[in-house]
Amino acid sequence: MARPDTLIVCLVLIAAGMAAQPANADGHVLHPHDEVHNWGVWGKDDQKGAANYMTDERVVEAARLIRTGKRFSLAIPIDATGPVFPGRLNPHHTMVATGTDYAAGLSGPLDFGVYRFADDYIYMPLQGSTQWDGLSHGWYGDTLYNGVPQTQIGATGAAKLGMENLKDSMIGRGVLIDVVAFKGGPLPSGYSIRRADLEGALKKQGSKVLPGDIVIVRTGVVPHFYTLENAVERAEFWARPQAGIASDVVPWIKQTQVAAVATDNIAFERMPNEDDPDHLAPLHGNMLRDMGVYIGEIWWLEDLAADCAKDGRYEFFLAAQPLHIPGAVGSPLNPVAIK
Amino acid sequence: MARPDTLIVCLVLIAAGMAAQPANADGHVLHPHDEVHNWGVWGKDDQKGAANYMTDERVVEAARLIRTGKRFSLAIPIDATGPVFPGRLNPHHTMVATGTDYAAGLSGPLDFGVYRFADDYIYMPLQGSTQWDGLSHGWYGDTLYNGVPQTQIGATGAAKLGMENLKDSMIGRGVLIDVVAFKGGPLPSGYSIRRADLEGALKKQGSKVLPGDIVIVRTGVVPHFYTLENAVERAEFWARPQAGIASDVVPWIKQTQVAAVATDNIAFERMPNEDDPDHLAPLHGNMLRDMGVYIGEIWWLEDLAADCAKDGRYEFFLAAQPLHIPGAVGSPLNPVAIK
Amino acid sequence: MARPDTLIVCLVLIAAGMAAQPANADGHVLHPHDEVHNWGVWGKDDQKGAANYMTDERVVEAARLIRTGKRFSLAIPIDATGPVFPGRLNPHHTMVATGTDYAAGLSGPLDFGVYRFADDYIYMPLQGSTQWDGLSHGWYGDTLYNGVPQTQIGATGAAKLGMENLKDSMIGRGVLIDVVAFKGGPLPSGYSIRRADLEGALKKQGSKVLPGDIVIVRTGVVPHFYTLENAVERAEFWARPQAGIASDVVPWIKQTQVAAVATDNIAFERMPNEDDPDHLAPLHGNMLRDMGVYIGEIWWLEDLAADCAKDGRYEFFLAAQPLHIPGAVGSPLNPVAIK
Amino acid sequence: MARPDTLIVCLVLIAAGMAAQPANADGHVLHPHDEVHNWGVWGKDDQKGAANYMTDERVVEAARLIRTGKRFSLAIPIDATGPVFPGRLNPHHTMVATGTDYAAGLSGPLDFGVYRFADDYIYMPLQGSTQWDGLSHGWYGDTLYNGVPQTQIGATGAAKLGMENLKDSMIGRGVLIDVVAFKGGPLPSGYSIRRADLEGALKKQGSKVLPGDIVIVRTGVVPHFYTLENAVERAEFWARPQAGIASDVVPWIKQTQVAAVATDNIAFERMPNEDDPDHLAPLHGNMLRDMGVYIGEIWWLEDLAADCAKDGRYEFFLAAQPLHIPGAVGSPLNPVAIK
Repeated sequence: MARPDTLIVCLVLIAAGMAAQPANADGHVLHPHDEVHNWGVWGKDDQKGAANYMTDERVVEAARLIRTGKRFSLAIPIDATGPVFPGRLNPHHTMVATGTDYAAGLSGPLDFGVYRFADDYIYMPLQGSTQWDGLSHGWYGDTLYNGVPQTQIGATGAAKLGMENLKDSMIGRGVLIDVVAFKGGPLPSGYSIRRADLEGALKKQGSKVLPGDIVIVRTGVVPHFYTLENAVERAEFWARPQAGIASDVVPWIKQTQVAAVATDNIAFERMPNEDDPDHLAPLHGNMLRDMGVYIGEIWWLEDLAADCAKDGRYEFFLAAQPLHIPGAVGSPLNPVAIK
Repeated sequence: MARPDTLIVCLVLIAAGMAAQPANADGHVLHPHDEVHNWGVWGKDDQKGAANYMTDERVVEAARLIRTGKRFSLAIPIDATGPVFPGRLNPHHTMVATGTDYAAGLSGPLDFGVYRFADDYIYMPLQGSTQWDGLSHGWYGDTLYNGVPQTQIGATGAAKLGMENLKDSMIGRGVLIDVVAFKGGPLPSGYSIRRADLEGALKKQGSKVLPGDIVIVRTGVVPHFYTLENAVERAEFWARPQAGIASDVVPWIKQTQVAAVATDNIAFERMPNEDDPDHLAPLHGNMLRDMGVYIGEIWWLEDLAADCAKDGRYEFFLAAQPLHIPGAVGSPLNPVAIK
Repeated sequence: MARPDTLIVCLVLIAAGMAAQPANADGHVLHPHDEVHNWGVWGKDDQKGAANYMTDERVVEAARLIRTGKRFSLAIPIDATGPVFPGRLNPHHTMVATGTDYAAGLSGPLDFGVYRFADDYIYMPLQGSTQWDGLSHGWYGDTLYNGVPQTQIGATGAAKLGMENLKDSMIGRGVLIDVVAFKGGPLPSGYSIRRADLEGALKKQGSKVLPGDIVIVRTGVVPHFYTLENAVERAEFWARPQAGIASDVVPWIKQTQVAAVATDNIAFERMPNEDDPDHLAPLHGNMLRDMGVYIGEIWWLEDLAADCAKDGRYEFFLAAQPLHIPGAVGSPLNPVAIK
Repeated sequence: MARPDTLIVCLVLIAAGMAAQPANADGHVLHPHDEVHNWGVWGKDDQKGAANYMTDERVVEAARLIRTGKRFSLAIPIDATGPVFPGRLNPHHTMVATGTDYAAGLSGPLDFGVYRFADDYIYMPLQGSTQWDGLSHGWYGDTLYNGVPQTQIGATGAAKLGMENLKDSMIGRGVLIDVVAFKGGPLPSGYSIRRADLEGALKKQGSKVLPGDIVIVRTGVVPHFYTLENAVERAEFWARPQAGIASDVVPWIKQTQVAAVATDNIAFERMPNEDDPDHLAPLHGNMLRDMGVYIGEIWWLEDLAADCAKDGRYEFFLAAQPLHIPGAVGSPLNPVAIK
């Protein structure tokens, strides 16, 4: 039986969740907090959310999926060409020491003996390439996951729920759900991926989703973006609705107890919301704030998907740890699937 | 027998290596190219170097080291406090959308419906925290690994030997060589870690180094840096010689066929060079250019080392993939050891 | 007589100012708001503060000071070597297209016909070189200049009092007060520049301060910084109290109706506060928040001061417009004195 | 008579110029170097070029144009909305300390006593808003202005011809040539502004161009850009030819001995070149490399032009000094016209 103080904490958490429920939520745009939340499940001070499902035991089990040693990077190039959400900059890589300078005899500042070197910098949004959204990245009302007040997220970073909480995590079992293969091609603009699509694809594949998994949904959107030929086509792409996860998938995510859902589209969910287009990405609120489930975006799945289609194995060990950036609300990463 | 054209290629490569040997190298500062090089070993166009030792088979073998599921991040925080080599900037993390703005009612630009979000950016040197030095990062003479001309490394990045070559790699068997434990404490300023230190520590541990391994050498330097209390102490730290790998370790690295050597010091090797202090870091030339062996710097080993001391297992599965940054000469990463 | 609604506005402004007076201000650390403020002087919605003193008429008068055409930049180099307050980064300049790349034949990405070009970027704090502090940069209590709530200054910039308000301003009459010449040498660490110093120097020079002037006080601190020889000396410099303006100068600034005060020290005022060292830079509150007087920091005065000593003219036309960065709380600039 | 060594220097300079003439220049795309160059005019080591025309005397004369004291900023906002050439990033302004954080009680890191402050950073191309192109920004062949080899422009900046050479300059007489008023409206896409347009507008205005002037040509392109309503329209804008200066203006610029030509279009000249569209911006070569005349781009002229139309005075004092960034090949600035 729960100790009384735990009970009080839970009641407070539930009340906080209800209070935070936005007045204009009608059951379509957002699933009610108390139907889907994981607040208090791992303690009232927990900052890791559903990453807690990735236990040591599950990591050991996942390791048994490593049978051929083949490795697949699931990251797009971090460069100026990727599908970065308008308003964010593309990553910008600069060199501050080059071989061409040495060749030109312009190496004065770099003269440290026989050794020569090149050096570089990057300026980039932490949500501007293959990435994790952290639990401090999104919410609704005044509170984030586990009741953390939004006033904890300031100009010096996230005082709580920052990416440092994941530095030893996001490594375990991954499962690819190939909706592109299931539907017979890349999803069209604005397609809503429903629970039936995911379950249909899983059945076709013969795959199972287990607690603690990182579920990876293939949509074909990111590969499609790279086929666009010029700036006009890219501008038109951004003006259209985006294919993504539909609202009825949220309860399934809760029930399956997965740690994270990653996709090869722009922002996980169908955008704007199909029930009410005044809301851009409300399901992020259910995911990050209510359930504490992490969101992966702009992943690259083509190489992995081709291999899965060949060997029929859609499960793998996945090393998807973020960078260790304290106070960050998201992180670029290079997820590597190992079969 | 080698086919004639392969032979010619090898001769050209050897000649190029000899030609590139700096006139002032005397056998102390740099090991002669032809004694230690791996040029042509994986083909004349190879850009991965010793990462080729990390074969699929070795990854499968390494996976058997996952027994408890315990995970250890080997990354320092990416923030303003780390031991970044003078002349480079500390990473700089900024927020462009915050919860405090929403709380203040200043959320106009961020109003996309019920969903609220925080967003952030980073400006950082790719060699300014826990990192890999790529093969395009360092060389001597006019050529880099496998004879790539230095003129391939320009202001738009490394046209060859960039970090994109490692996007599916640097995952496999790791072995910790705890020189701190072997010597009875953190290494003093300017200490030269010799082959005998590494072999002594390995023997004490009962550990073996295998081909394709990522060898990790514990020095105690990075933890020491974090104990410094103010800017004066930190400035004095940088003015002193740095503890690191000595010259006689280079042939051992060649013989063991490891893929990479990472350390918890500033820049892998003893700096400046103990044989000739006019050379800051010449062994980087032997490592990156001649052998194609990767260098890891500024790693965090305290948590892992404590666990190894406890369970006596110094070998583990290591997920140390870099970010996928085309043309980058190095990369930050969050290496995670899994036992 | 003031119209009733104006009177009410003034009372509200005064009340707001009083309410904002911090409980621990004792008359030493901060001058009371109601003794020195300029709120409402230029209308309740004014966002330019004392820049309003730089009227068209005064600009015409100032133009008559242009007699020889000699020009003096009052800016330090924007580079990695300047005296940037710890916690801020030095400006970081990078090149993304170079001549050495063309020389090396690595110009593919830059091939636009016969024309060749170099291109560059900068990452810098807007308060990290010769600069203006804007009225949105500093305050005390909950309000900034003219009662603007601190909640107007968020992660997307200053919704009010941003540097865009100065885009047509900060050009007019400048007067150098050479305290170094008056005191016989650069000011020592922690020296408090009092009203008597300024008035003594002015008298010695035969100079007058007029309304709308930009007053420039020479301390010798920035030139001293550039004589420091290594990182240890620079760390020690930052650990010592800084020479700067003392508290009794504030009422003089109010009375003289100057638009701005600029100095060749780090942060205008003596730091920490000499009356209570728990307060780092409280006079900024009187300057920016109460009086709406702009602060210039880290200016370079050596060339101008030498010329003034030679020709005995300490007054000049000054072009000190900031960059046009909307929402910025400060700006780098290159102030040029013209005699 | 020139001393023999001067003569030799001149011959060498001329020979260098001829040698550097690109093989594919046919008299249309580029004016021959020896017809338009200013190499050696101000000495063989000169790095200021036509800024030398802005003598002290001309500054004194220009000051007489200050009659009303009205000031007009000629800078667009430095923000995410401006017409930045594709491939460059828009300036990116971030806040690292805010009032909303203080309001939320999240001010721990900023607690320095009563004083509160906001702080900000910028990442920007130096050619990404209202700007000067420096003499190190553009060239053809292997050499820049005055025979400086392209190998002087490396990853650590411009070793010669950097913006530091202008820190005391670009202040003097400005003259607006309102081609929009002359042609009866903003110039259409791809319009070539010919010498007759400039002379016609000058005659209509009753204006004269004098040596050392900064000539400012109004095209209407930048204001037109700001009327574009979405990303698709902006992408289409960049896909069309750009209105700008035509080839026959180059000799006129040489003859008038102006220091600089600035425009309110994207990149000064008609792009691509109308004689041979394989060349994007060859006239930059004649301007920067041959004549040493500075180019101003993306200026904002609407407010100034309206005032000139009203009072009939198209001449003014112009404070157009760049930032003092050593080694920079260009600089943002806030040019202010004073009438």
